[in-house]
Formats: sequence, C-alpha cells, structure tokens
Amino acid sequence: MKITGKLLINGQWIDGQAGTYQAVNPATGESIEPVLSKATTGQVKDAVAAAEAAASFFRRASLEKRAEFLRACAEEIMALGDSLVERAMAESGLPKARIEGERARTCGQLNLFADVVEAGDFLDVRIDTALPDRQPLPRPDLRYMNQALGPVVVFGASNFPLAFSVAGGDTASAFAAGCPVLVKGHSSHPGTSELVAQALAKAVKKTGLPAGVFSLLMGSGREVGSALVSAPEVKAVGFTGSFGGGMALVKLANERPEPIPVFTEMGSLNPVVMLPKLLENSAEQVAEAFVASLNMGVGQFCTNPGLVLAIESPALERFIDATSACLAKQPAGVMLNEGIQQAYSNGVAAISSQPGVVKQAVGESHEGKSGFCGQSTLMTVSAVDFIANPELTEEMFGPASLLITCKDLEELQKAICALRGQLTGTIHAADGEMADYDELIDVLSQRVGRLLINGFPTGVEVCHAMVHGGPFPAASDTRFTSVGSAAIYRFLRPICLQNYPQELLPEQLQNSNPLSIWRLVNGERTTKAI
Amino acid sequence: MKITGKLLINGQWIDGQAGTYQAVNPATGESIEPVLSKATTGQVKDAVAAAEAAASFFRRASLEKRAEFLRACAEEIMALGDSLVERAMAESGLPKARIEGERARTCGQLNLFADVVEAGDFLDVRIDTALPDRQPLPRPDLRYMNQALGPVVVFGASNFPLAFSVAGGDTASAFAAGCPVLVKGHSSHPGTSELVAQALAKAVKKTGLPAGVFSLLMGSGREVGSALVSAPEVKAVGFTGSFGGGMALVKLANERPEPIPVFTEMGSLNPVVMLPKLLENSAEQVAEAFVASLNMGVGQFCTNPGLVLAIESPALERFIDATSACLAKQPAGVMLNEGIQQAYSNGVAAISSQPGVVKQAVGESHEGKSGFCGQSTLMTVSAVDFIANPELTEEMFGPASLLITCKDLEELQKAICALRGQLTGTIHAADGEMADYDELIDVLSQRVGRLLINGFPTGVEVCHAMVHGGPFPAASDTRFTSVGSAAIYRFLRPICLQNYPQELLPEQLQNSNPLSIWRLVNGERTTKAI
Repeated sequence: MKITGKLLINGQWIDGQAGTYQAVNPATGESIEPVLSKATTGQVKDAVAAAEAAASFFRRASLEKRAEFLRACAEEIMALGDSLVERAMAESGLPKARIEGERARTCGQLNLFADVVEAGDFLDVRIDTALPDRQPLPRPDLRYMNQALGPVVVFGASNFPLAFSVAGGDTASAFAAGCPVLVKGHSSHPGTSELVAQALAKAVKKTGLPAGVFSLLMGSGREVGSALVSAPEVKAVGFTGSFGGGMALVKLANERPEPIPVFTEMGSLNPVVMLPKLLENSAEQVAEAFVASLNMGVGQFCTNPGLVLAIESPALERFIDATSACLAKQPAGVMLNEGIQQAYSNGVAAISSQPGVVKQAVGESHEGKSGFCGQSTLMTVSAVDFIANPELTEEMFGPASLLITCKDLEELQKAICALRGQLTGTIHAADGEMADYDELIDVLSQRVGRLLINGFPTGVEVCHAMVHGGPFPAASDTRFTSVGSAAIYRFLRPICLQNYPQELLPEQLQNSNPLSIWRLVNGERTTKAI
Repeated sequence: MKITGKLLINGQWIDGQAGTYQAVNPATGESIEPVLSKATTGQVKDAVAAAEAAASFFRRASLEKRAEFLRACAEEIMALGDSLVERAMAESGLPKARIEGERARTCGQLNLFADVVEAGDFLDVRIDTALPDRQPLPRPDLRYMNQALGPVVVFGASNFPLAFSVAGGDTASAFAAGCPVLVKGHSSHPGTSELVAQALAKAVKKTGLPAGVFSLLMGSGREVGSALVSAPEVKAVGFTGSFGGGMALVKLANERPEPIPVFTEMGSLNPVVMLPKLLENSAEQVAEAFVASLNMGVGQFCTNPGLVLAIESPALERFIDATSACLAKQPAGVMLNEGIQQAYSNGVAAISSQPGVVKQAVGESHEGKSGFCGQSTLMTVSAVDFIANPELTEEMFGPASLLITCKDLEELQKAICALRGQLTGTIHAADGEMADYDELIDVLSQRVGRLLINGFPTGVEVCHAMVHGGPFPAASDTRFTSVGSAAIYRFLRPICLQNYPQELLPEQLQNSNPLSIWRLVNGERTTKAI
C-alpha cells in the first residue's frame, strides 16, 4: 500500500486543505517521505456529517454484521504486511518485535470485540413481561437494552502507534458498540495512521457498511481536535495522552450546549510498594525486575512504575544499591519524538531539583548517539518531603522513577494518601506478608484501577477482566476502563421499549431470543425463549 | 415517632445551627408545627467526615449484610405507620392513596435492591485465569469486579416526598452499591424527611453498620447543597429536579479539583405522537386517556405528557375537541408548594403568549379555593411556529400540554428533530400502523430514554427493565437510569486485582464462588466454581 498523505472522509481519500507536513524519524531526526496534508475545520464537518448519516444504519445493523466488520478490520490490517511494520518502526523508533507484537495485540483486540458483540452480554438485555392483572395497577411489557451512543471521536496516542491509535482499543470498542468513529490521527505516526485507515476503509467496503462509519483526519490538535469535539453530532470522545490535553477536551465537551462524555486516560505514577519482608528476602532480584520494567519501551508506558515506596531498612539500602547498579548499565533509548524527549528531560530536571530529592543513579549517556534519546534515572526522597511537595507527583513520561523512603508504616500510609488517582498500584510482598497490611492495601486500592501483587504494571493484558483506568486524574471517568472488553460500556446507553409490538422489536428483545444471548427475564438470568 | 427538627449527623440527632424554619401545608398555605433547624457548612463537614469514615467498612461488607440493611430500611419505614402518611399528606397536598402507594413503591424499591445485591450481577465479575505457559508472554491472573464509588450525596425531589426523596431510588441504589449516603432533604417536606431518616437510622443501628452510612441534612440548597457537592470525600451526586438546579450542581462538580459524576434527572416534555389512523379510529377514547394522564398528580410528574404531535386532519380536530371538553371539567388541584404553583402559572402564561400559540381549553378555575392550585391547560401551535421558537420547548411543570399541528409527515419529523433529549417518547398507533413510520420512530427513539407504544408515560415502573433517564437535558448523563435496578451502575467503578492471593480475595472473586453468582470466567458466563 502507498502512503498518499490524504485524509479519509466519507469513504473518499481527499487532500487536506490546511497545509502540509512530514513525519520525522526519531532515531535520526530526519523527515520521512512523502509530504502529508492537514484537514480544515470544513473538512472535519464533512466527515462528521458522514458519520451522522451512517449512525442509524450502523446502530441497527445485526450483531453478526458488526462482528464480521471487526474481523475484516483485523484481516485487512494483517494484509498490509511489512509495509505497515516498517513505517511504524520508522515513525516511532520502536523495534520490530515490539511493533509486530503491537500489531498482534491490535488485531487480537478487534477479534476479541467481535466475540463480545456476538456474545451480546454488553447489551445487558432486561425484559419484564406484562402483568395485566396486577393490583392496584397492571404492569406494562418493558424491554431494556444498551444501544450505540452515536458518532465517537478517537484521538490516537503517540506511544502505541497501533494498539492505542487508529484501530486501537477506543476505535474497536466504539465499533463494537455500533458507533461510527472519527479518528484524529497522531502527528507522531501519520503514515502508520494512513495505512491502518486504508485497511479499515477496505473493511467498511467489504462488509457493505456506509462509508461514514470510519474517517481519518490529520492536522492540528487545536483546530481539528476542537472542531471534532465541538460538533453537535458527536456523542463521545476517547483520548489517551497528557493531563493537559485530556482536560482541555473535557472542558470543551462540558461547555457544549449538549455536554458529552470524554474518556481520557491521562497517565499515572503507578506506585509500587515494597513491603519489608519481601525486600529482606529478595532486594536484589526485585531490583533487577524493577529496572527491566522501568526501561521497557524506554519507559513510554502509561503504566510505567514511576514511584516506589518502602520503609527504611538495611534491605531497602540493598534494593537502592542493586537498582542503581543495574540502572547505570542501561543504554539510552530512542524516544517517540522530540517533544516527548524534551518533556522527559525537563521533567527529570524539575523533579531532581526539588528539596530533598537525590539523584541515585543514571543510565548510560546518550551523548554521541543520534536521535531523541532518554536516559534512565532513579531518584530518592523522604516521605516527609514528598508529602509536603505536590510537584513531586508530576509524571515523568520516560524511564525515570522516584523512590520514597518512609520512616515507618504510618508514614508509608500517609505518602499513599497523598497520591491522587492512579492507573495501577503494586504491592511486593513475601509469602503471607500482605495479611499484616490490610489497611494499607485498602487505602492503596481506593486510589487505583488495577492492583497488582508481586508483578510490574507495564503489561496491560487485553481481556475481559482488565481495568485500564482509575480514579481521577488517571482517567476522567473512573467508572470505565479503556482496555479490555468492558471498554465497550463507554459508548452505550440504555433504552427501554414499552409495549412494543413483538414483530417490530430488534432481535435481541424478541420473545424467541433468536440470538440465544443471556438476558434477565423477570429477574432470572437465562438464554431461554420467553 | 416525633418530629424534632434536628439533623442526623453520624448517628446523632443534632440541632442545626443555621437558623430555623417551618414546613407549609400547600392546601391551606399555613405553617406546620414544629419549628425545624438548618445545617451550617461546618455541620455538613461533620456528616461528610462520618460518611468517609464509614465508607471502607460499608464497601467491604458482605452482600448479605447490605441486603439485610436494605430490607431493614423498608421495615422501619413501614413501622412509622400512619404518622408518616399523615405528615407527607400535610406537607405535599397529595391524597392518602397516592402517599400510601408511594410508600409501597419506596419499600418495594428497597427490597428490589436487596434482591439485586444478593444476585450479584451488578458486580459484573470477570475472571481471566493465569496462562503461565502462553507465548510470547504469560498471562497473569486477572479478576475484575465493580465496587462502591464512595460517599454519595442525594438531593430529595419535591414531587415524590417518599419515592424520590430520603429513602428513594437514588438512596436505595447507592446503598445497594455499598456507598454511604448524605441526603440533602427537600424543604417542601422536611418533617416527612426526618421521619424517614429516623427509620433509616434505626436500620443502620439494627444491622450494626457504622453510623456514617447515612446522614440527613436540611437547609439552604445553595449553602448546604454546595458544601456537600464540593466536599473532597464525596464521589457522586444524585439529583431530581429543575434544569437550572441540576446544571448548577454539574458545574460545581466539574470545577472540583477531582471532578465527580452528577446524575441529574431534569425533567422533560415527553412528546406523544398521535399517528393518523389511530386518531381516525379512536380520537375520543385517546383524548380521555390523555387528559387523565395529564392531570394525574396535578401534572407534577417528570413524565407528564407536555407535548402532543399530530398531522392535521378531521380526526385531529375531533381529538382537540374531545380533549378540550374533557379538560374543561377537570377541577384545579393543590400543587406541591407555592414556588411550584407560581412557576407553573408563569410557565403557562409565557408559553401562551408566544407567537401562534392558541389556548384551546382550561380546566376549572381555582378561584375561591384555598391553597396553591394549578389549572389544567391545553394549547396548540403549528409545527412551523414550534420549530422556529425554542421558547416553546420550556417545560411547564404541571397539568399543561402543547399540541403541535403538523401539515404532513415531513413536518412532524422536523418537529421531532427540533426536540432535545427527553425522558420518554410515545407513539399512539393503530394496529399495523407503526411499520409505515420506521424512520419517524427511529428519530424519536434517539431522543428518549423510554419509548412507549399506545400508553401514557406517567407511570414509571420500578423493575429491572426501566429506563428513567435519556439524552441531555432530560438527564446529565444519558448512559444511566435513575429508576429501576440498573440505577445501581451509577455508583460503581471497576477494579482489577492481578495475581491476588486466593485467601485474601473478596468472596465474589474466589475460585470456589461461595456466593454462587454469575461470573464471566475466561469468556464463559457461569455460576460454577473454578
């Protein structure tokens, strides 16, 4: 497939009318061919109108058709072959194995949502049949199901050019819900975005869906992004990125005549608590695993362990020494783009200059290396200084971590209470040790979306039980996950049909239950017909 | 039980320190004994601190305990006996049968949520077991469940002194979710509120829950309400009332350092579409049913049919004539309070003075009658005038309706497209007639939470399949209902436990499934143990 630099609007590939730009290879700093184009707000309107025109058909399409479409998306992405992998590597600086893994994850995600659509649990069908003889009043026939909210805007994230971008989790879950999607592609990997959009456009055509089901718009976040979020036809927004960017969208959405939900995933410090016995038993082993997790993908994960908390002890000293020694050997890695590299350097400089912060170790220098590289860093600070200084809860997006040394359990708990919402929290504990820290663990659990025991948070499994979200400001809405099959709930709303003629009901609500889905019928969960 | 005029804070009955007031009987305009007291913002803080202190215990309490508590609430409300019914009648002007019915509904609602808690479906438990040998990476053990958000603030509504007030649907669903509740009682029925709070306090004590699980605060909406919504410990808000009041709370909640969800139900016009054949067949019968629905409870329902839409025809003339004749015989009824009566009079005056609006009929006059009475009113306007004038979409809370006469189907559809979100929409159709109006019905369905066929929207059944909510501005969040068992979803958030020790897992996530609840285990819905 050839990259054309055009936008996908209503099934047509069209030159953007708001100027041109080129992608940049972060490993070399050089521009990549070809020249690409940016959308005007007028072009955004065209795409939104197409999405709105497609919405009713797509919402009412059969579950089978929706599943077929999701699987076709995965097939067409695989059919892009090496050209996709090569372009994504060039635009992101990420290695081949990572990009191939991400492609597998992206396609697996689309196929998982196809299964979810067919299973039909997400519809949450509830039927209370009529009770015409009930006293003092009869009960009408009432049938409840979830249905698509309407057109959804998805903002591609920089750090996962496939799995959190054009056909990533937000798009897959919105499609599964039956919502047309308008993607604002990330300027860090525009060629990759176009290739994936070509695959999705093919899948739309192949499955006979209206062209407006999917559009790709590239261009200025402020102009294109704002125009998308402000469009009256748009009913929800998915975003993964910075706190500032996410909250700007939330504000915009709240100020609309009709406010709409914005699901932002805005990063996290991902505190890791090392309990005393665990450190005593295995400070060195856990130090090594910690450094590996910290440096994975040059630390560019929302779930990177940016904070470690532990009680002062000789074992903690061993952990710090072992971590420092291991970290010093880490080579500097190429980061996703110049902006991220600069923000990382500035972030580390800002944190390390705060009162009481000590730089314990740095990885290998990137001097002499080409491209936008980030150097691993470990810093320490006392709990007292940490609690007194909200600046220290700023995320450093990259391979840096801050270790909080606490005098005792009370101080450790206070330090956790000083944290705002997090995507993840982790406890490292020796066998049986957790039982002694019940309150601490409960306090931590109330600040996170996912609580891990004796692992590291950097792997986010795409499955039914995942929660990738958490209390504010990890996410704008703590009631939803952006990864895993429950992500579909974000783009649904319930509707109740009362006394609706049987022959006009959608299949999922018909007495005969032709789709054999699980339903709550008069309070009983069943797949049986009525 | 005696009414004391005190507030319930952390299990203690305490005099409010922000002044006194008395309830007013809307049927006579006279004050009711005794003198009551208002909370200061300091007293609000005390109640919030107690709720926060109770939150962890209540969140982690067994489902059995929570169900026991909900049932105890219902029992204690019934045990209040006639004193509750009499006080509610005096404060609301509503007749005995209605108050007794509402009490039954309130207790039925509490008992329904007890069943919901025990069934455990709301937990949405999802378990993906470990795959240690998976290539290229092993999968950890992941367990997902919904859990309580934290303390919830509930604003009592004026029009249902029991079912949407202190122990109404918001409170019952928040308790079911495991959230402590802080009620800001409505000043229209403060004595009723205190009596119900006495019952809930007894239930808290009887079931051994921490006192902070429930508090009642009376006082100024601006001061007490704002202090509650702004308190950092509060995690969600439930509100039923006016658009202005609801949106003020939404704004306040969005401006917090940690924004929180506010679930407002802000009323609705509840459009009723009369299709041509139906009118031809039975204009007179449907007119009579319509007037009965319009006048029920002096029109003081959020689901009152405030808008009728139909295509011009001789049959429509018959409908207008029959409605007018029937409506003219309706006696003026006592409204809930002076403010509502005045807002209703002003609303009718404002709508009837708009260009093209014709007053077709009014009910009996309330002159000479004591108390705050509302007069039934029917007005008509052409679709062209309706579409051109957004003022005509203002709700008149009371027994008034505006009938939109449309030249043809196209105009009817345009008039529906001019509507914002609604709690309900209704189609009256003759046998087989709906099939010819597929697009019209689809367009209407996208603007409502509940779509009724050949009924009237004023009855809101408390069951599993109800949706009482809808697109903005009917509700602030269209993804949730405030009535029915699905209302519990508003007060939950998911958490994922990764590699958690089996012996420390809550019962709902344990392999053995000791509660025998439905769970999604590796993608299969089952009640079996793992």
